[in-house]
Amino acid sequence: MNSNEKQVPAIVVKRLPRYYRYLSELLKTDIKRISSGALSRKMNVTASQIRQDFNYFGGFGQQGYGYNVEYLHKAIGEILGLDRGNKTIIVGAGNLGRALANHDAFERRGFIITALFDIDSSVVGTRVNGKPVFHMEELDDYLSRERTDIAILTVPRAKTQEIADRLIRSGVRGFLNFSYTELKTDGMVAVENVHLSDALMTLSYKVKRMDS
Amino acid sequence: MNSNEKQVPAIVVKRLPRYYRYLSELLKTDIKRISSGALSRKMNVTASQIRQDFNYFGGFGQQGYGYNVEYLHKAIGEILGLDRGNKTIIVGAGNLGRALANHDAFERRGFIITALFDIDSSVVGTRVNGKPVFHMEELDDYLSRERTDIAILTVPRAKTQEIADRLIRSGVRGFLNFSYTELKTDGMVAVENVHLSDALMTLSYKVKRMDS
Repeated sequence: MNSNEKQVPAIVVKRLPRYYRYLSELLKTDIKRISSGALSRKMNVTASQIRQDFNYFGGFGQQGYGYNVEYLHKAIGEILGLDRGNKTIIVGAGNLGRALANHDAFERRGFIITALFDIDSSVVGTRVNGKPVFHMEELDDYLSRERTDIAILTVPRAKTQEIADRLIRSGVRGFLNFSYTELKTDGMVAVENVHLSDALMTLSYKVKRMDS
Repeated sequence: MNSNEKQVPAIVVKRLPRYYRYLSELLKTDIKRISSGALSRKMNVTASQIRQDFNYFGGFGQQGYGYNVEYLHKAIGEILGLDRGNKTIIVGAGNLGRALANHDAFERRGFIITALFDIDSSVVGTRVNGKPVFHMEELDDYLSRERTDIAILTVPRAKTQEIADRLIRSGVRGFLNFSYTELKTDGMVAVENVHLSDALMTLSYKVKRMDS
């Protein structure tokens, strides 16, 4: 790791997936190079902000000629760790867990959903989008056999901490947490919370401001 | 609208749902008052940040005795527009749309899912969590009859803009957009994007940094 990368502000990190997504779109076109100005108009970020963002990672090449789309896409993908093929399990195969197993964007970004886990006998033993659903009792055994980088948690809030602890003991290092609870961890794992109703509340705030 | 509210920074707005959620939890306990210090420890925000945040909205009362939990919960709920009972439709009744219709947290926060819409004959005419699924052809007629504040969009990316335009023409003012596309609007509507794979990519970045 480049030691400079440690100090990348969270707000810059948050923009990387957007850059990556947009560059993925560009790759499908004939556009081989893009200026920070053109990128700026598409991304709703100033050109100088884009240059500043990229400078955290060495700048990605000559600005006069614009950025090489393929190179930039690959470089940002590597920074995001997408080139590693993150092995991912979904714990909780309810409606949301099953929807996420069907969410094609995940595999497109290099996240390989390997299995789902649940306690509900009506889903255990079935397949969702081709992925097996195992009983929670099989979880520890599975993790001892199969490398697992990331766990997506869509379990009831009261169970989330206990299950996360179990996963951490088995070496899982990344958690995408859909439960409305703040996970307590030892700081040696990474957690991203997705609070769907927070997005809806923020939207409600904005709508209310528009109405007044 | 208090004219001061216009200048509330986005980062403060983003914290309001978290305050609201935590206060909802507190309401279930015997705790009637809470200091900014205690709130701070729970929220991972400094006490002075909390006081600054609240000052955008008039401060919410005397700090020496702490905040009145019930009053603060109600006040933040009103700022977020949750007291209005936001009528919400889900456009796209695929896996994700159906999972969201089953997401109880939405109704707990005052979002009333009234209907889903799709073109798939295998779901049109069914009910999801008690809500009817209508055909997209019925959308305009439905909107002319039923007040609709918010639309949750879980439709294929290529269709998103066209459907959003149709909803905007019918007076929908708020969009929770799960499609990987930036909606073009006239600026008179509010949009919150939920890019699930962005959260996963950000997580991948963090895991990669931990490993190195």
